[in-house]
Amino acid sequence: MVTVTAEPFDFAFEPDELGLIVIDMQRDFIEPGGFGATLGNDVTRLQAIVPTVGRLIDGFRRAGRPVFHTRECHKPDLSDCPPAKRLRGDPSLRIGAEGPMGRILIAGEPGAEIVPDLLPIDSEVVIDKPGKGGFYATDLQAELEKAGVKQLAFAGVTTEVCVQTTMREANDRGYDCVLVTDATESYFPEFKQSAIEMMTAQGAIVGWATETDKLLGALS
Amino acid sequence: MVTVTAEPFDFAFEPDELGLIVIDMQRDFIEPGGFGATLGNDVTRLQAIVPTVGRLIDGFRRAGRPVFHTRECHKPDLSDCPPAKRLRGDPSLRIGAEGPMGRILIAGEPGAEIVPDLLPIDSEVVIDKPGKGGFYATDLQAELEKAGVKQLAFAGVTTEVCVQTTMREANDRGYDCVLVTDATESYFPEFKQSAIEMMTAQGAIVGWATETDKLLGALS
Repeated sequence: MVTVTAEPFDFAFEPDELGLIVIDMQRDFIEPGGFGATLGNDVTRLQAIVPTVGRLIDGFRRAGRPVFHTRECHKPDLSDCPPAKRLRGDPSLRIGAEGPMGRILIAGEPGAEIVPDLLPIDSEVVIDKPGKGGFYATDLQAELEKAGVKQLAFAGVTTEVCVQTTMREANDRGYDCVLVTDATESYFPEFKQSAIEMMTAQGAIVGWATETDKLLGALS
Repeated sequence: MVTVTAEPFDFAFEPDELGLIVIDMQRDFIEPGGFGATLGNDVTRLQAIVPTVGRLIDGFRRAGRPVFHTRECHKPDLSDCPPAKRLRGDPSLRIGAEGPMGRILIAGEPGAEIVPDLLPIDSEVVIDKPGKGGFYATDLQAELEKAGVKQLAFAGVTTEVCVQTTMREANDRGYDCVLVTDATESYFPEFKQSAIEMMTAQGAIVGWATETDKLLGALS
């Protein structure tokens, strides 16, 4: 068992049971001209963490630990997109509509791809998810079990939406979870901070929070 | 279709498709001397919403709409409690330990019961859930489908933990969700406020927020 300095107290993990989940580092959320930018969000905040997320991924690869990537996207026929989700947005920017990087949030379109600097390698699992949470209607739990992963580090975007939702799902399923705070970001800094605080409150009710260098130092 | 004033914009619903989920209004979280109080929390904040939650439940009953109650609790043998959850807390207050209202978070113990003022009636569904989210490892979705419910109002405790987690799960599953802000509460007022803001942001990314009187007015 190895420990790493974290909030609200040290996070203890077995290095050979730890996996990394990188949430939705997709072009449509992160690149200028993508879906996120079109919604009026400042994507430079998210772009800024790409090198840190890359360093975190590299550290896991060097330690021989598995990296799982998620992408929020839907089938081209939208059969996995609930009407309540599709109708939520501005009509001109609905899921499936033609957007600046192809059809919005549709698998196979340029915008749904992971940013070039963080592309998965062939051996890594990529989970396409229809929801904000990575466990709903996906093989994520089966893939984690196949890899023998019992503890999870979280990175990616956005902190309070897809990262938080997936971390809450993982916590309910019995995984000890640690959020890597400099490898996650939100369009809204106050929501990032609050999500970290509410998940680590009450003795790590959802999980712990640490930083890239600390986690990689403990892992290597 | 009926509309009710809400944040971030009016919430539209079919009265005969709307259900109410009341999350974890249990003695152990709400009453003095319960588990929540033992953890050092001020339960008077949660006690204060009991009459409002009662009024909301009554309004749904009078309108002939279904009310679903959840309770966070585990089987007496703890077979549905992941070790990661059981080991998280203070050893003297772990799930299953003898607490001020019986064994902590164990089904059938006094602390796991819903507070007397909000007891379900015989026709209502009560979901015992092992996680923070009401959909994980429960029949909640099947019960909603059986009742023909497609849109959900949320009440209960605590806002940023079990209410938020369940509302995020419901949103991923295609339910339009509205949080009744005066019928939910947290031990931490800043977390309640932030949870409301992050769920209603970006055009109701997780759902809407309204108040008891507004919703009951639209329902009746």
